Amino acid sequence: MKIILLSGGSGKRLWPLSNEIRSKQFLKIVKNEEGEAESMVQRVYRQIQASSLNAETAITTSKTQVESIKGQLNDKVSIIVEPERRNTFPAIMLSAAYLYFEKKCGFDETVVILPVDPYVDNRYFSTLKLLDKAIQTGAAEIVLMGVKPTYPSEKYGYIIPAETSQEAVSVRSFKEKPDTLTAGELIKQGALWNCGVFAAKLSYLTNILKSRLSCNSYSDVFENYSKLEKNSFDYVVLEKSKSIAVIPYDGEWKDLGTWNTLTEVMDNKPIGDVILTEDCQNTHAINELEIPVIVMGAKDMVVAASPDGILVADKEQSSYIKKYVENCDMRPMFEERSWGDYTVLNVSIDEQENKTVTKKKCIRAGSVINETSHKTHSEVWTILSGKAIININGRNHDALPGDTYTIPQNTLHSLTAVDNTILIEIQITG
Amino acid sequence: MKIILLSGGSGKRLWPLSNEIRSKQFLKIVKNEEGEAESMVQRVYRQIQASSLNAETAITTSKTQVESIKGQLNDKVSIIVEPERRNTFPAIMLSAAYLYFEKKCGFDETVVILPVDPYVDNRYFSTLKLLDKAIQTGAAEIVLMGVKPTYPSEKYGYIIPAETSQEAVSVRSFKEKPDTLTAGELIKQGALWNCGVFAAKLSYLTNILKSRLSCNSYSDVFENYSKLEKNSFDYVVLEKSKSIAVIPYDGEWKDLGTWNTLTEVMDNKPIGDVILTEDCQNTHAINELEIPVIVMGAKDMVVAASPDGILVADKEQSSYIKKYVENCDMRPMFEERSWGDYTVLNVSIDEQENKTVTKKKCIRAGSVINETSHKTHSEVWTILSGKAIININGRNHDALPGDTYTIPQNTLHSLTAVDNTILIEIQITG
Repeated sequence: MKIILLSGGSGKRLWPLSNEIRSKQFLKIVKNEEGEAESMVQRVYRQIQASSLNAETAITTSKTQVESIKGQLNDKVSIIVEPERRNTFPAIMLSAAYLYFEKKCGFDETVVILPVDPYVDNRYFSTLKLLDKAIQTGAAEIVLMGVKPTYPSEKYGYIIPAETSQEAVSVRSFKEKPDTLTAGELIKQGALWNCGVFAAKLSYLTNILKSRLSCNSYSDVFENYSKLEKNSFDYVVLEKSKSIAVIPYDGEWKDLGTWNTLTEVMDNKPIGDVILTEDCQNTHAINELEIPVIVMGAKDMVVAASPDGILVADKEQSSYIKKYVENCDMRPMFEERSWGDYTVLNVSIDEQENKTVTKKKCIRAGSVINETSHKTHSEVWTILSGKAIININGRNHDALPGDTYTIPQNTLHSLTAVDNTILIEIQITG
Repeated sequence: MKIILLSGGSGKRLWPLSNEIRSKQFLKIVKNEEGEAESMVQRVYRQIQASSLNAETAITTSKTQVESIKGQLNDKVSIIVEPERRNTFPAIMLSAAYLYFEKKCGFDETVVILPVDPYVDNRYFSTLKLLDKAIQTGAAEIVLMGVKPTYPSEKYGYIIPAETSQEAVSVRSFKEKPDTLTAGELIKQGALWNCGVFAAKLSYLTNILKSRLSCNSYSDVFENYSKLEKNSFDYVVLEKSKSIAVIPYDGEWKDLGTWNTLTEVMDNKPIGDVILTEDCQNTHAINELEIPVIVMGAKDMVVAASPDGILVADKEQSSYIKKYVENCDMRPMFEERSWGDYTVLNVSIDEQENKTVTKKKCIRAGSVINETSHKTHSEVWTILSGKAIININGRNHDALPGDTYTIPQNTLHSLTAVDNTILIEIQITG
């Protein structure tokens, strides 16, 4: 059994904590049993490791998330990098190609596809074993996991089984986002929420791939990725499949995609430098900035501050945030990288339209910012703390606090952190 | 007639826009008739100039506010600097000494004392003329201005006149912060709010001064300032005076000391980079940061973001902010100076407790940052834009964008801005 975690999402609905690089699954706002904050990527990966599944796991994602994943998990995790964002059908095809051509998996191996960001309990992973078993015993070509609904939601897709059972049973039909009344009727018939989890034999997936693309290597698929239909696997495959079964999962399942659902799994304590006065009711506050936040007399609200911006929202209203964020045309102000992270402190544009960007970079001891050069700007680095070796144009410099280095345009430079190092980088364009 | 404007206040009640240096009277959130934002200092000073009073005006304040006043008014305004903060009685004595010893004013000159921060209309300044007239015709030794109450407030002090009149009438008594019922009764008797405005002859004030301190020059008073009773002029003089009259002011008067009162005179438009969704009700938002603020579905709230912090408060609750801000032990993150302003972008303390502070300084063309040196830290200056002459240890450097200068500890340095200049300053301690 191989596990593929799909890590997608632009994450605008959890603005300002999420942005195009820092999707919701990377936010460290859910606590583990030891009370430490962890992200959904970390939580799901930890849950898989802690389960008895013993399954090799790879994460399929876009280039923009690779650094965040390496930073949050470790350098050894297998990452399948999509050449471009093209929805789940191409991503799953690329994953199948990776398992077949690169990992040399057998055709009979069960492949389980999971989204990387559901908030679930351990029964979820035990149910995956049942999916594997159902595939290996030939119950169907595709076996889905269906979540036992807790209320007649209008937000989810429903899987309607041919009969009610704890075992794998055939799927009769699908129903996307029904109204509440219909949802209630479906639930009476034993319908389950589609949570995007399914299992199939590798051969089933590679056969679909080969029907679309002639390929003899992983790079054949990678290079012809744009030829794969830009649509969801649900639409392209599931809804047309003749041999499809579902197994119910009767445990906690939350899609932490909005502030409203996310705050449901957060405890009451604010995160960061926050004073929440006693007269606040059902209010959550998260502050990633270095300045204090005071919240007084708020009711049913969420307050979130990050280098990208500040949200103050009624929880119900917060689910409509996407359209407002789309009007905020800003670069991400905070990014995790494999070597640490950076925060944009200032962007200035002068009267002659020359632009400067001031960043604080935190580089972990032993990490390296790889050699690069910039065509459009020069840089000034000033070391605040730590110890690093800075290489400019092939010459090494031992850099200590107070030292400053000017790196002209088109000049190769790299940095190796000897100790944890903090520096201010000023980029000057023009 | 001479006008003394008293500029005091620590300004914690309008946090995060105000701080110990930037008191509420310096906040540019009230609009003038041309729709331009101006501060209360600017508004009151402009109103005095525009009135037909033709009175020389000086501002009495503490050292911490001098740069802000010069930055907001101009370099030529007369400023009387208190050697230390000691309440209104010493401040008024110092002001009298200044008028007598420095300005050589005559004993018969009327001195009008005004707070610098009330929100008033032009009738206020016409009423000052009546105060002057009453003093010159000998109506009383002290003549107060009393505001016609609009509701039985428990927050203010009341002046109870001997009879009701539009002219100067004797004061019968004072009542500080009565309960609503008593306030209602007092208003029926013609009582007026004490708004801290009074007039007296200079001789009246200097006589009080001489009874406390033997002095033959302004510096005698300045140097012995700590010997003057640390109390309010109301307590030390007014409440004990035998010859005191009051003239009513029947016009707009607002003490913009809390978010609740301040937002009453603001228009509905948010200030700064703010999206306020349509479903917000009676909500004001001010953003001085360079990152966007989105407010959704808020009701009766104020949202204020500055380099010092972020406030999200129910308007009613916001008047209790002071006690929470007192727990925020932070340096001011934004200051106006005579040469421009600076914002603290980052404060870092490393594992060895070495501290660095990164500031963005904006220096107006033609302005000078005077020569100084620092015992505790070195500095790195990087020019982002503009043109300046930087002098380090007596040597001039023509500084242009991208140039960087390291200024070691105990090294004299100054800057003259040729054009509007922006630089990043990094202070490194240890």
